[in-house]
Amino acid sequence: MAIASEIYPNDRVNLREVGLRDGLQMVKTFPSTKAKKKWIEQEYAAGVRHFEVGSFLPASKYPMFADVQKVVEIIATLPDAHGAALALNKRGTIDALESGVAEIGCVLSASPEHNLANTRRSQKETLREIENLCRMRDATKHNPLVSVGIAMAFGCSISGSVASTAVLGLVEKCYDLGVDMVSLADTVGYAGPAQVAALSAEAHKISSGKILGVHLHDTRGMGIANASAALDEGVRMIDGAMGGLGGCPFAPNATGNVVFDDLVFLCETKGLKTGIDLEELMKIRELLKVEMPTEPLYGAVAKAGIPLGFEART
Amino acid sequence: MAIASEIYPNDRVNLREVGLRDGLQMVKTFPSTKAKKKWIEQEYAAGVRHFEVGSFLPASKYPMFADVQKVVEIIATLPDAHGAALALNKRGTIDALESGVAEIGCVLSASPEHNLANTRRSQKETLREIENLCRMRDATKHNPLVSVGIAMAFGCSISGSVASTAVLGLVEKCYDLGVDMVSLADTVGYAGPAQVAALSAEAHKISSGKILGVHLHDTRGMGIANASAALDEGVRMIDGAMGGLGGCPFAPNATGNVVFDDLVFLCETKGLKTGIDLEELMKIRELLKVEMPTEPLYGAVAKAGIPLGFEART
Repeated sequence: MAIASEIYPNDRVNLREVGLRDGLQMVKTFPSTKAKKKWIEQEYAAGVRHFEVGSFLPASKYPMFADVQKVVEIIATLPDAHGAALALNKRGTIDALESGVAEIGCVLSASPEHNLANTRRSQKETLREIENLCRMRDATKHNPLVSVGIAMAFGCSISGSVASTAVLGLVEKCYDLGVDMVSLADTVGYAGPAQVAALSAEAHKISSGKILGVHLHDTRGMGIANASAALDEGVRMIDGAMGGLGGCPFAPNATGNVVFDDLVFLCETKGLKTGIDLEELMKIRELLKVEMPTEPLYGAVAKAGIPLGFEART
Repeated sequence: MAIASEIYPNDRVNLREVGLRDGLQMVKTFPSTKAKKKWIEQEYAAGVRHFEVGSFLPASKYPMFADVQKVVEIIATLPDAHGAALALNKRGTIDALESGVAEIGCVLSASPEHNLANTRRSQKETLREIENLCRMRDATKHNPLVSVGIAMAFGCSISGSVASTAVLGLVEKCYDLGVDMVSLADTVGYAGPAQVAALSAEAHKISSGKILGVHLHDTRGMGIANASAALDEGVRMIDGAMGGLGGCPFAPNATGNVVFDDLVFLCETKGLKTGIDLEELMKIRELLKVEMPTEPLYGAVAKAGIPLGFEART
């Protein structure tokens, strides 16, 4: 049985690689299962323990996730590695529960307009599905974690501003329904650090010991600053993607999750241990260049190198 | 007579465009005087009031600054615009004092090794030159401000770590010598936000009402996070360069000041007024593309656009 506080301990920063899911959502070329295995194993060897592995979606429409079951199994072979897969509809939920994946993720948008555009469901309907998932999960033997990403939590490219009270209401509802982790997602890169700090602080207050995470995009260059603000508020679960891969089909121009290796660097400059060897981690870029030659790979530390005397400094 | 607290009021954020100086230090192509005039006038129209205009250096070696006197005069025609020029040696100091520029900037490196490599002088010798400059300044009628940028204040690409006590000692000496503004420079992009916050807080304590600024490079992707940390500590003078132009000849791979328009966006997300119209500001990029076609221009907001409902949010 998965215990959230053991999987996401709050005495260290838990950085989750979402490149294999969010990072592949919109790419033209994607890694083979063999390459995904190498990607995971190499990052695991560098110290990464949390991965989004894919999405349970029709393989015909989403060929990049056709091997999600296999990727779930790859993660399961690695001690202490934790895999999460997305389930965005009933079929996906059933498949995810059967797959044995340790965490099932859902998406609920803080913007009613975006929730409708993204899923053709109202927020109420999505909440009902989350409730059903939690019930079905409770009936399983392996009892996976359920997590919800609150999309557009900092503003929406369809409806503009999103009231923080509305976001916090959804966060509370999710925890009440039995969700183990809620993450505040800046889906289209609208957030600034003051907003991230304020919302993280408020969300923490209602989390009553459950896990709170942030999922940040670097669309407007604020990704690392926003991560820093979340860390300062005690958030200890942050998503990132190697090379800054990823985007959202309903968010025009929204390219790029916060860069995973830059995120590791940020944490280490703050004296927050990630358990990740930055030098080793960056080597995975070579594989991505080969597997996804047409995708731009972002990352500042990878370009400039680790500072001289860096280890000594932290 | 220039009064520092009026030129850099602390009830607003003073963002300084250093693209015309630090941004041109290493470029292969550079704007004509006419284009510099347009650059300044267009940014001025967008609300920018602080500019680094160039460096008093031999025109034979630094052709990009050959027109510095003319640029000083362009700034002087614009009400409330404030120009600063660098003077890095005796000849430069005399020229700068005669030019009528409102602020003369010097550089002192926090790393003895870098100070020597960069200027062929010891830190003591550089401090003596700063003292001389302050005296010569006091004897002028127009009494320009004197500012010092503490290079490598957060770590050095030649010597590694730099002790914050050493930096603070130099900051204090500069203020004691009559320097009006000291800025902490992350010359090679080694800093993280916790370090910037800590050093800014300590430096503020010894500034006794004088101006404290930060000069940040985005070399390792931390530029905006570091600016955010400095703002949180009450720093109200931050350098940036349009398009993230700039670097340091003694800092290999150190490319890019923090991006000016992204910096404006950051401040506005924090509710800190810059007096700058972001939409208008970004238009200057077209000129830079024409004048410096071989230089990469960075910037996330320019690429993704201003968020929907952004004005309403701030």
